[in-house]
Amino acid sequence: MSETLDTIIIGAGSAGLSALREVRKRTDRFLIINDGPWGTTCARVGCMPSKLLIEAANAFDHRKTFDTFGIRGADQLSVDLPAVLSRVRMLRDGFVSGTIKDTEVDATQQISGRAQLLGPDRVTVNGKEFRARHIIIATGTRPRVDPAWTAFGDRVLTTDTLFEQTTLAPRMAVLGLGPVGVEMAQALARLGITVTAFVTRKATAGISDPNVLNALWTELEKDFAIHIGERARLAAHKNGIEVVSGDKRLVVDQVLAANGRVPNIEGLGLETLGVPLEEHGLPPFDRNTRQIGDLPVFIAGDIDPDRALLHEASDEGHIAGMNTAIDEPQRFRRRTPLAISFCHPNAAVVGKSCKSLAEQDFVTGAIDFSRQGRARVAQEDAGLLHVYADRASGRLLGAEMCAPAGEHLAHLLALAIHSEMTVQQMLGMPIYHPVLEEGLRTALRRAAAQLNIKTDSDLALCDLGNSSVLE
Amino acid sequence: MSETLDTIIIGAGSAGLSALREVRKRTDRFLIINDGPWGTTCARVGCMPSKLLIEAANAFDHRKTFDTFGIRGADQLSVDLPAVLSRVRMLRDGFVSGTIKDTEVDATQQISGRAQLLGPDRVTVNGKEFRARHIIIATGTRPRVDPAWTAFGDRVLTTDTLFEQTTLAPRMAVLGLGPVGVEMAQALARLGITVTAFVTRKATAGISDPNVLNALWTELEKDFAIHIGERARLAAHKNGIEVVSGDKRLVVDQVLAANGRVPNIEGLGLETLGVPLEEHGLPPFDRNTRQIGDLPVFIAGDIDPDRALLHEASDEGHIAGMNTAIDEPQRFRRRTPLAISFCHPNAAVVGKSCKSLAEQDFVTGAIDFSRQGRARVAQEDAGLLHVYADRASGRLLGAEMCAPAGEHLAHLLALAIHSEMTVQQMLGMPIYHPVLEEGLRTALRRAAAQLNIKTDSDLALCDLGNSSVLE
Repeated sequence: MSETLDTIIIGAGSAGLSALREVRKRTDRFLIINDGPWGTTCARVGCMPSKLLIEAANAFDHRKTFDTFGIRGADQLSVDLPAVLSRVRMLRDGFVSGTIKDTEVDATQQISGRAQLLGPDRVTVNGKEFRARHIIIATGTRPRVDPAWTAFGDRVLTTDTLFEQTTLAPRMAVLGLGPVGVEMAQALARLGITVTAFVTRKATAGISDPNVLNALWTELEKDFAIHIGERARLAAHKNGIEVVSGDKRLVVDQVLAANGRVPNIEGLGLETLGVPLEEHGLPPFDRNTRQIGDLPVFIAGDIDPDRALLHEASDEGHIAGMNTAIDEPQRFRRRTPLAISFCHPNAAVVGKSCKSLAEQDFVTGAIDFSRQGRARVAQEDAGLLHVYADRASGRLLGAEMCAPAGEHLAHLLALAIHSEMTVQQMLGMPIYHPVLEEGLRTALRRAAAQLNIKTDSDLALCDLGNSSVLE
Repeated sequence: MSETLDTIIIGAGSAGLSALREVRKRTDRFLIINDGPWGTTCARVGCMPSKLLIEAANAFDHRKTFDTFGIRGADQLSVDLPAVLSRVRMLRDGFVSGTIKDTEVDATQQISGRAQLLGPDRVTVNGKEFRARHIIIATGTRPRVDPAWTAFGDRVLTTDTLFEQTTLAPRMAVLGLGPVGVEMAQALARLGITVTAFVTRKATAGISDPNVLNALWTELEKDFAIHIGERARLAAHKNGIEVVSGDKRLVVDQVLAANGRVPNIEGLGLETLGVPLEEHGLPPFDRNTRQIGDLPVFIAGDIDPDRALLHEASDEGHIAGMNTAIDEPQRFRRRTPLAISFCHPNAAVVGKSCKSLAEQDFVTGAIDFSRQGRARVAQEDAGLLHVYADRASGRLLGAEMCAPAGEHLAHLLALAIHSEMTVQQMLGMPIYHPVLEEGLRTALRRAAAQLNIKTDSDLALCDLGNSSVLE
């Protein structure tokens, strides 16, 4: 057995690489262990290839606006699916090699293999044992798939295999409408595939506000069919795969399983840490330090199902990496929650969700984008945005939306909410004309009109004693 | 002569209508006077029709990305210019009728005609004289055109006539590349017209940062030719109109004169107010109250060439309207400057411009969008964004950009700058992945690295004594 290292990182995904960036600033005595392909879920099979597919799909879908704009010939456009998928892979490969470059460390500092904890300071991999002062666990997740479905081969896809296809068949079922399911179902439908989504309840993209959900659902159903019913089962059929949900039976060529992801916990040896494991199989840990109890062991990334998002995984790796370098781990303030699904219109939840506000005395300001000026100009006139604010103080609490340029409106709201602004403070900002942000302003004004304290101007009065640099 | 009214508003444009909204909340004893067509510069001939033309042009231009995405048949697309212009007018008419609806007042409360001041409390229009306790002057602007050019008829266009055309000729010169010139030159070029812009110096869209200007210029020259030289003259030519600038001679079919706008001051009787007029013909006034000296007369909208933008005109009308109702006019805090040109990539100046910072010790953080992840995914990989921050305090001062989704990034920066945030505070916000806002974050981090005070995390530490509602 070798000398004691400073830090072992288990998992070279987004969280592990983020931890590595901090760890290597402070020590050379580290080891990063990765099981399976290097290159992060995000770059290989997640955020990046999905966005590449979506951009192609939306570009093709845009043809539906052409005749109204006065552009002729849209009916001559067609999708070359092998070419679409080939570009997805080509750029994806570039993004993957970028993340692999981030792990350019000495050969002795990285190992490909399945790590197993032997205690809070010991890890074994490929039959070799390593000791370390700190361990960071960042093993991530994998798609949830019924083991029986492997018999269908590449006719049952997950995001691990979807982007490897050289082409796709004309009829597809998508199981699940979480963030992955909704993005891929719509993109595949917009690329000309007949898509049917199977879900067990009316829910998608993390939206909890029933009105926003209804508005989004209506838009999604313009692109693909959605069946709500019993959990879908798959059966062999002479013309493909039969998807069965209660009385509903549908024969398709391929199935995309998008029923969520499961953490890579099995065989990791978490039980050797000497702390009782919780229901989901993880030991308890502090989400602001990432530390497990008072052990020198930290958890980062999607293995923790709370906030399984790239930017949060990256923060968690950063926090864990920072905290391996100091005796008393620091508690970092986590960012305001922000979740975006890149379906069209973009769905987003910022700050507190509608559902989580149930106990609070709050007001809702709404904007229906079907009548918003710029949205009509751009033929993007669909969507609903709700902002939530505390009735007494006017403080912005959260927002849910499906909106044109929703990804951008969500960031604007995230900055305001993260900065603990009131509705009135946000209304003080400049809003140009004609922009979609004017729709958000309408929602804010409608919220302001319901607050306990009302004002008759968006503009603040000059405080002569404290004039702004920008006055 | 009739009884004394409370308020007379001269001009029913965006500023006048904004004033009217405030005035009518408080009194019925008002009069709004308008010369020429009702319906605002913005809705009739400005923001709205230009954005309608731009959206059609950009939709057609998007075909250049199709082959790379894997979409075939783009070469079969064509522009039906009469149809494009017809949609512009159809939606434009809807926006105009919306603004006219805003002036639904009693027939006795509005007059069509050219108003002339007879003093700080008297106005004459159509030979009739009116007295009022307050007067709001909001007569706006008109395109600057050489009177000699009227001889060319509809072959020399301005934004007053451009959108009335049923079709457009294949060769066009655009004189001037201000916000109007740059937007229209590019849109017309993208609709298939061969456009040559004539300017007297390398400047456009209010950009003062030379690097950002260069990046924008490069992009613009992909769409149309730009000639920098002496002020262009127009001459009749057997094949059209000859545009002459120094040695450069070019024959085109039509000319769009976009050399700026002139305030509607002539014959307004400003000299009867009894205060000396300034160089540009306006009396001095307080830009935070809009009041002229201590007279009961207020100025709002583009007649004041400072901040000739819809959202500022609207604020100025609002301030003037509010201040007619109270004895001691209130000083309102003006918004952080924000100017956007909807060329592609969007050009924007937020807060302090680069040029205005010359005397200040500031740092610049840059992001080149040609290498930004999401921009490459979307084939929007062009543009440059600079953020400026005070070196000592880290406070965000301003930004200039030509960037994909620049209109949205500009609003995000505007909120941060308006709220007097530091670079570090803005870096605390959540940024999703993969989004263009990550490019902005890169620029912020590069600025942060040059500040006098450096930190090793974007995340703040938890303040246990003051935990956030959102923790």
